Amino acid sequence: MAVYTEVSEAELRRHLAAYDIGELRGYAGIKAGVENSNYRIDTTTGRFILTIYEKRVAPADLPFFLGLMRHLAMHGQPCPLPVEGHDGLALRELKGKPAAIVTFLEGREAGAVTPAHCEGLGAALAALHGAGAGFAVRRANALSFGGWQALLEGCRGKADAVETGLEREIESELADLARLWPRDLPEGVIHADLFPDNVFFDGPRVTGLIDFYFACNDLLAYDVAICLNAWCFEVDGAFSLARSRALLRGYNRLRPMSAAETAALPVLCRGSALRFLMTRLYDWLHQVEGALVQPKDPVEYLRKMRFHRRIAGAGDYGAA
Amino acid sequence: MAVYTEVSEAELRRHLAAYDIGELRGYAGIKAGVENSNYRIDTTTGRFILTIYEKRVAPADLPFFLGLMRHLAMHGQPCPLPVEGHDGLALRELKGKPAAIVTFLEGREAGAVTPAHCEGLGAALAALHGAGAGFAVRRANALSFGGWQALLEGCRGKADAVETGLEREIESELADLARLWPRDLPEGVIHADLFPDNVFFDGPRVTGLIDFYFACNDLLAYDVAICLNAWCFEVDGAFSLARSRALLRGYNRLRPMSAAETAALPVLCRGSALRFLMTRLYDWLHQVEGALVQPKDPVEYLRKMRFHRRIAGAGDYGAA
Repeated sequence: MAVYTEVSEAELRRHLAAYDIGELRGYAGIKAGVENSNYRIDTTTGRFILTIYEKRVAPADLPFFLGLMRHLAMHGQPCPLPVEGHDGLALRELKGKPAAIVTFLEGREAGAVTPAHCEGLGAALAALHGAGAGFAVRRANALSFGGWQALLEGCRGKADAVETGLEREIESELADLARLWPRDLPEGVIHADLFPDNVFFDGPRVTGLIDFYFACNDLLAYDVAICLNAWCFEVDGAFSLARSRALLRGYNRLRPMSAAETAALPVLCRGSALRFLMTRLYDWLHQVEGALVQPKDPVEYLRKMRFHRRIAGAGDYGAA
Repeated sequence: MAVYTEVSEAELRRHLAAYDIGELRGYAGIKAGVENSNYRIDTTTGRFILTIYEKRVAPADLPFFLGLMRHLAMHGQPCPLPVEGHDGLALRELKGKPAAIVTFLEGREAGAVTPAHCEGLGAALAALHGAGAGFAVRRANALSFGGWQALLEGCRGKADAVETGLEREIESELADLARLWPRDLPEGVIHADLFPDNVFFDGPRVTGLIDFYFACNDLLAYDVAICLNAWCFEVDGAFSLARSRALLRGYNRLRPMSAAETAALPVLCRGSALRFLMTRLYDWLHQVEGALVQPKDPVEYLRKMRFHRRIAGAGDYGAA
């Protein structure tokens, strides 16, 4: 789990004095998420999430993330709304680190993912892409090509410990993608990390989208590809055509993808798989003694990458 | 009930095209509220309330109301957040009338009001007053003194049909209040209509405050007095000391009232009772054949006004 920064009740009460959200009733660390420290806070005014930003989040990016969440909430998306203090500021400091309080969203994770979940997710993603269009601030995707190359450098000579030939396979894939990556597809604000633990449901209906700390400007269809990888494989690694067809149906009904976007999906899925393979590999090879978080297995995404390399085309995802 | 403006599914779909809240799943008129037309709307992105503003709301006031709701939500209050369209505008037009979409709030009305509800309400009201402090736009209270006098003129020669001597009693009360009304108490943004049908609960915890269409700048303690009248009388008309003590305790813990504010409560309660007596009397005497809404009985507030005139002081409300 991940509560890196402990906060005492007295510290929290002092911190809350800057806000208008009433008296503290209770709070608890949240054992999910690997990047930041999160607390659920109950006050007389409601339930909130306090996030203390740890070292993997660049402070310079926080105005983008908080501004984006506010923009999306104001456009009706089921996203947390950053809460401002008396002084109008949402980004504050706690225990010497940047910190923010956002509204709590009801709902629960999908659990066993069904095609109905995927269709709801697709619709929510399309609405998110629409709502992001008016957001003026920009943030480059730090985990696009340039970032992958740097991650590979950080794994040099060690990747084959995970699987023989992995370093060469990654190099070859990087070279392919540099050549194949689409250049002229519609861009916009993407979530870039919309995994099942970042989406809440009430039945098949999406009630919450959280964790915008990888959000950035990039190809919209790349966000779809990230979701295809994160939502459309069975636990045993088999690709679920029913889920992927539902996801694309939900997305396309609201924001119909162009023929070029659809055709690019296999390459975008390879790139998305490579991105998570690389970050997981890096974390796997740089494990810290006594770390709070168990790194995720990079091999899951290696297998997904190979799947997308093998398929005939976007039709294999059930794209209409 | 009150859906004055009917909206067809086709009209609603056209209207929703200006927003990023996904596809329409269903909608229904809301049979509560007497001022505007309200619809509950379900889309693929979530649940919302569409309000079409009818003739009792001055269009010039709408930027104040919508801006205030946005300000309060951004300060963590459990208020609806107005939803902006693609163009960044929350205030639009539907069927030739001003219209807005706001987020839906979970929770249900208190039903049988308990002291625990009143304590939660008091805390919510104090937080609301704190959060309103930073809102820069101002709106005078149209239903303060000046408004009462005008309402009385509209009832001249007819009030005694409700109860013999009522017109003289109102005139006398107006004269008293003109003399007794406090001038130097803290002012701010008040809700001004926080009746039980405008507050949602989950158990004793307030989860929603709605209907900001009487909000204005006025004495903060006057808002407390409105709530004492609206929440602290039994169905049979008896004053509930337990409820009023709880309401004041909840409020004072977050925003301690000054001695002057507390001392002024009986006069403020008389004024609040007179305000609702007058508006109800006016509506009672100006009933329209075939109206959708049954006017509320003005006598309820006449009795409350007399109660506050008789008491010894704020101690009778359980003020500490």
